[in-house]
Amino acid sequence: MGVVFSEIRLDTGKRKELVDITEQVVSAISKGGIRNGICLIHSLHSTSALIINENEDGLRMDMLKKVSEEYPPGIGWLHDRIDDNADGHLAGAFIGPSITLPVKEGLLVLGTWQSIFFLELDGPRKGRRILVEIMGER
Amino acid sequence: MGVVFSEIRLDTGKRKELVDITEQVVSAISKGGIRNGICLIHSLHSTSALIINENEDGLRMDMLKKVSEEYPPGIGWLHDRIDDNADGHLAGAFIGPSITLPVKEGLLVLGTWQSIFFLELDGPRKGRRILVEIMGER
Amino acid sequence: MGVVFSEIRLDTGKRKELVDITEQVVSAISKGGIRNGICLIHSLHSTSALIINENEDGLRMDMLKKVSEEYPPGIGWLHDRIDDNADGHLAGAFIGPSITLPVKEGLLVLGTWQSIFFLELDGPRKGRRILVEIMGER
Repeated sequence: MGVVFSEIRLDTGKRKELVDITEQVVSAISKGGIRNGICLIHSLHSTSALIINENEDGLRMDMLKKVSEEYPPGIGWLHDRIDDNADGHLAGAFIGPSITLPVKEGLLVLGTWQSIFFLELDGPRKGRRILVEIMGER
Repeated sequence: MGVVFSEIRLDTGKRKELVDITEQVVSAISKGGIRNGICLIHSLHSTSALIINENEDGLRMDMLKKVSEEYPPGIGWLHDRIDDNADGHLAGAFIGPSITLPVKEGLLVLGTWQSIFFLELDGPRKGRRILVEIMGER
Repeated sequence: MGVVFSEIRLDTGKRKELVDITEQVVSAISKGGIRNGICLIHSLHSTSALIINENEDGLRMDMLKKVSEEYPPGIGWLHDRIDDNADGHLAGAFIGPSITLPVKEGLLVLGTWQSIFFLELDGPRKGRRILVEIMGER
């Protein structure tokens, strides 16, 4: 049994943004040497989330539109008295910062139309950190 | 330590539908021979999701109604220009395709009123695939 | 490899309420003796959920307000004919009862502004049960 950690670091350029991190996760699994197990991906930020879906230009814009409509900024959230990002916290809280995926025969198990996205909810930011943990049998 | 994979395959009959897969998951755990560990359930489709809640007729209809209202079809989503199922992708993205549950003394740990549902969001479909991975000590 | 289970029990005082359980989870990991692995937290109730975000007074109220607006009680849900808590079930179903987090060098991995909350959705209740499972290498 083995446990391997790595970290994805990324900079974002917009207030809300979807960043496809599938390749980085696949690469971490390839380097990790775990044959069968799980891959836990966890964003360390409370104004971000992780999402799995298809990486298609229109759909990415639909997802961002839906988030903005569902969690509108500046409508009297109490947290905005402290920091002007309650909308980002709320989206992060209800979408969630963690995803666990299967690793089988050394490969990440994803469907054909499944990509992994980091969802920035209070950017632009430098040095966003996402922990990738792979655990299983070598 | 052991890792055991199995797959649930199912056909759906409606555009949106909740299919209770608790028995199939329980059966996979029973066959898997893992005594203490985790059970990771992952749907391989981006127009589906997994949900845990009570299997009661009225509540199942409430859940489907809520999904339809929250992610209405055909309101100008950009992804609909490519494939007429943006609503299903959006619900799948924000509800999520994966669930991890405890396995203790050979049994799946669920509360009395917790069942596991596959949520079809773009049916009817044949051969929907859900991976069940059990990992832990034998 | 080891697997350690413990349980958090708590009483809630309001219909909807956020209870910070971070300390109890940290304590379970400290006692569990697992050095590198994962921590799976699972609420056994279908009218509750788990959330990770910042523990700030205003934001806690914002999160509860958002849940109440998103899942309003008493608007003709079919499940209310059986039990007057469809709103709590729906929020529990779509927010979700489980969270998996990394454990690294004996410590729970959380960002600076991430706390773990039990979200009561049909309180007040006595004896709410949350299973904490830690699995990994000692």
